[in-house]
Amino acid sequence: MKSIRNKVKDGAPPLLGVDLGGTKILACVVDEHGKILSRCKKKTKPEKSSQEVISRIALCSRSAVAEAGLEWEAIGALGIGAPGALNPHTGVINLAPNLNWKHLPLKDILEKELKIPVFINNDVNMGVLGEHRIGAGKGMRNVMGIFIGTGIGGGLVINGNIYEGSSFMAGEIGHIPMVENGPPCGCGKKGCFEAVAGRLAIVREIQSEIAKGGKSSLQTMISGGLGSVKSKHLAQAWKEKDPLVMEQIEKAAHYIGLGVSIAITILNPDAIILGGGVIEALDAHFIKKIAESAREHTIAPLFKATKIRRALLGDDAIVIGSALYAREHLEKT
Amino acid sequence: MKSIRNKVKDGAPPLLGVDLGGTKILACVVDEHGKILSRCKKKTKPEKSSQEVISRIALCSRSAVAEAGLEWEAIGALGIGAPGALNPHTGVINLAPNLNWKHLPLKDILEKELKIPVFINNDVNMGVLGEHRIGAGKGMRNVMGIFIGTGIGGGLVINGNIYEGSSFMAGEIGHIPMVENGPPCGCGKKGCFEAVAGRLAIVREIQSEIAKGGKSSLQTMISGGLGSVKSKHLAQAWKEKDPLVMEQIEKAAHYIGLGVSIAITILNPDAIILGGGVIEALDAHFIKKIAESAREHTIAPLFKATKIRRALLGDDAIVIGSALYAREHLEKT
Repeated sequence: MKSIRNKVKDGAPPLLGVDLGGTKILACVVDEHGKILSRCKKKTKPEKSSQEVISRIALCSRSAVAEAGLEWEAIGALGIGAPGALNPHTGVINLAPNLNWKHLPLKDILEKELKIPVFINNDVNMGVLGEHRIGAGKGMRNVMGIFIGTGIGGGLVINGNIYEGSSFMAGEIGHIPMVENGPPCGCGKKGCFEAVAGRLAIVREIQSEIAKGGKSSLQTMISGGLGSVKSKHLAQAWKEKDPLVMEQIEKAAHYIGLGVSIAITILNPDAIILGGGVIEALDAHFIKKIAESAREHTIAPLFKATKIRRALLGDDAIVIGSALYAREHLEKT
Repeated sequence: MKSIRNKVKDGAPPLLGVDLGGTKILACVVDEHGKILSRCKKKTKPEKSSQEVISRIALCSRSAVAEAGLEWEAIGALGIGAPGALNPHTGVINLAPNLNWKHLPLKDILEKELKIPVFINNDVNMGVLGEHRIGAGKGMRNVMGIFIGTGIGGGLVINGNIYEGSSFMAGEIGHIPMVENGPPCGCGKKGCFEAVAGRLAIVREIQSEIAKGGKSSLQTMISGGLGSVKSKHLAQAWKEKDPLVMEQIEKAAHYIGLGVSIAITILNPDAIILGGGVIEALDAHFIKKIAESAREHTIAPLFKATKIRRALLGDDAIVIGSALYAREHLEKT
């Protein structure tokens, strides 16, 4: 405990970073350099009530502080990365379908409950900020993060700050149109980037090939239906060079390369940072395939000017970004 | 003359705005509100030497000042929108193929020649800035300009300022990949946005249909080959409801809508501003077709949050933007 306490200097109080997801809450005490000092994880249980979820955020935060051997009063501020559409200025969650929340003034409620300043932004934005401050984008000016998981999310840091767009919806690259009359997307459109290159899209294509008589090692790897295929299963089949899985993953890499190319060409950023479950599970060869596709589709000087990097912070990006966001906004107030 | 002189108040000197194109130079005296007080146009003649082009810029600028009835000493600064790849900080044109320029320190040369502060940026960026300051984007925070002419160019204003990207190449939306294995693009890639929706692409498709036996009023409208089809000819055939031309222009509108959708989804701007020769020549029905395609391909809250507007300043956007850019950068120095 003493060693952690000694880290807390006057004028640089530790922060709380919270990653609020639909299934779990992760709260961490983070120092001013983005180093995690303690962590606490709890289930979100959104099926109960918003008050229950908020109590769980508070409980998880207090546990992380206790775990770090700190008094609550030592914490400078709390930053929280939340899912869905929200307004970072007012701290109101406008719509978070996977929490069943509408028009919830999360910042105000948490500040009353916790008696410390609370700062809110979108979870993907917080993740990109974390990568920008101490991860794959450190020291750069402009970066775009593209996260390939169940779906595809994106976020932007422009001139060193989160770029939220005019109504806090920027970075939704998962829903750019990519394939004309392509497969249906969860958003109701067809052929979105996410609908051809997210994990669900990859698994759907594999299922479709198997339904046509194709064979894959996934069939023996997964007991029951292929609906439960996770990124780690894809990674295993990819490592074993399962031809059916390889073909679909290479197709996804091709489309991810197109998305990277579009982002580079419009934004001319220092780097595109690739993260998310699918990127983390697969090896460097997958990133190489993505970069090859991006190079093929991007004018040379633009491609050369941009680094394509794997995210470095994994699941901690959001808590770290949230904590540093809170610190920076505390300094501004 | 007197009325113009009276407009020049102490502390708000008039500016020079210069639009440097491959075929013509336009220099205008512009007041601090972006109002054009005088104009002078000359041929660029890049086939001569860079010194000749620079002399013509100087001559054109001096003529515009004389035309406004002002002394040269009354001018606060000169802003110039130049084509190609350049560095706005150093004022060096790195590569401008249509001027045959490489590594030309244009800012330094012009400042020595003209004895006033000179500020340089890319012509498309200057045009978007002009539209942002006093045109279709006035009062907004974030806008993207998309200019449909011979090719397709784009520029961004983010948080009220030109966003140049990390190496001054942002906004190259004309070269995002749009159609897999599509028609060849001037840049060497295939299926770029510009290669399916710029004027050259539209004309190429019309030529191809005619080669297959199709009939169009353009054949009688243009003496000689269809190579000389301009936007005004397309507009005439579109107005006459020439079926072959309508089909190709509607196809272009579809693709422009895709480009607009991609820009909206990544950037969540206040507005997409559409300009350039093709947009100016065609009527509001063309913009409506573009907006319909964009709506069809964009998730509803993002589409609703963005205005799709026609540019208001036409060919004057670059000189106005350049002059106001010079004024703002003069204030910063």
